[in-house]
Amino acid sequence: MMRIPKLQIALDHNELEHALADAVNVGEIVDIVEVGTILCLQEGKKAISCMRSLFPEKIIVADTKCADAGGTVAKNVSDAGADFMTVICCATLATMKAAKKEVKELQVELYGDWTFEQAQQWREAGIKQAIYHQSRDALIAGETWGKKDLDKVKKLIEMGFDVSVTGGLTVDTLSLFKGIQVYTFIAGRGITAADEPKKAARAFKNEIHRIWGE
Amino acid sequence: MMRIPKLQIALDHNELEHALADAVNVGEIVDIVEVGTILCLQEGKKAISCMRSLFPEKIIVADTKCADAGGTVAKNVSDAGADFMTVICCATLATMKAAKKEVKELQVELYGDWTFEQAQQWREAGIKQAIYHQSRDALIAGETWGKKDLDKVKKLIEMGFDVSVTGGLTVDTLSLFKGIQVYTFIAGRGITAADEPKKAARAFKNEIHRIWGE
Repeated sequence: MMRIPKLQIALDHNELEHALADAVNVGEIVDIVEVGTILCLQEGKKAISCMRSLFPEKIIVADTKCADAGGTVAKNVSDAGADFMTVICCATLATMKAAKKEVKELQVELYGDWTFEQAQQWREAGIKQAIYHQSRDALIAGETWGKKDLDKVKKLIEMGFDVSVTGGLTVDTLSLFKGIQVYTFIAGRGITAADEPKKAARAFKNEIHRIWGE
Repeated sequence: MMRIPKLQIALDHNELEHALADAVNVGEIVDIVEVGTILCLQEGKKAISCMRSLFPEKIIVADTKCADAGGTVAKNVSDAGADFMTVICCATLATMKAAKKEVKELQVELYGDWTFEQAQQWREAGIKQAIYHQSRDALIAGETWGKKDLDKVKKLIEMGFDVSVTGGLTVDTLSLFKGIQVYTFIAGRGITAADEPKKAARAFKNEIHRIWGE
């Protein structure tokens, strides 16, 4: 019996005003609300505290992709109301350990070069979550999900990670992950740029339930 | 004849108010004002635009340590008034290239694992600046500047990079770099946490002039 993967909305807006509008529109449908890197850098902690205020019961993620000063950044986003925070995979183990202490859960964003040996070290440091991430820029360059990606996701799950996947996901691509215990699907423009974002968010939820709820 | 290295103040405050006070205190003494990662994440673009407003003639750096969405992040910080922006070394070349187009100069922050082969690719992509960075967390763990670090800095300079160095620098450690054409020394708490920050900033400047001005 598989768990139903969660759905996370990535709010990667340039302005808080626009992020708020999309958040209010689809926030109640999704499981996790992510304050994206762009929004974090544009609006600062206010973007996190606004989402916490709007969605007291939801999981809030601060996608800081933190590379250094992990303890301070984690304490700050946690104070602002974030439950999860991301660190970039090339951060040192010391940075990750410092961050882990200050936030409910730390997510390692797998990006560029990383190894399963490193991943094993993260597990040994008690880090439970990883985000398998397709770069937006790589996607623009024409790369997409394939067997190689899915095999890595499976291996990470076998290592004990809760694995979120992100990058160019659509309702149609979800079935590629069938049989894999994905922790969370992260969608951004696939929802917010849809003609009807609320309908798009529901379509994601329905397809996830259809595939994993059997 | 060597160029005189620049001095950069890293403002890594949790609150804009405190960053402003330190910036106003030492900003006219230094060459470059950096909005640090912590400050970027706490206060957003406002931190950059405030520094631009206070120091119209200085170089302003946004230390975003960008790992993805390079084009958007670079355009945003540039719009807010930043001249330079940092990307993390594990960002893809596509991300770096996208960022480079949108900002006056891009700085690759060397952090964790990276190779000189990658560095060569950055040069070939037209990226001129690199930051040799000692992790704050690594410093806390007791690591410091040594011959291995200095040799890497020299090799990067030979490759054509303008190399900034940062991490635990004090007035006393500057002489370790004697004979090396460092582009910029980046100091944070070494200045802002001093009893007299203005005096500390001047001491950095004087020591740099003493060593490189001969």
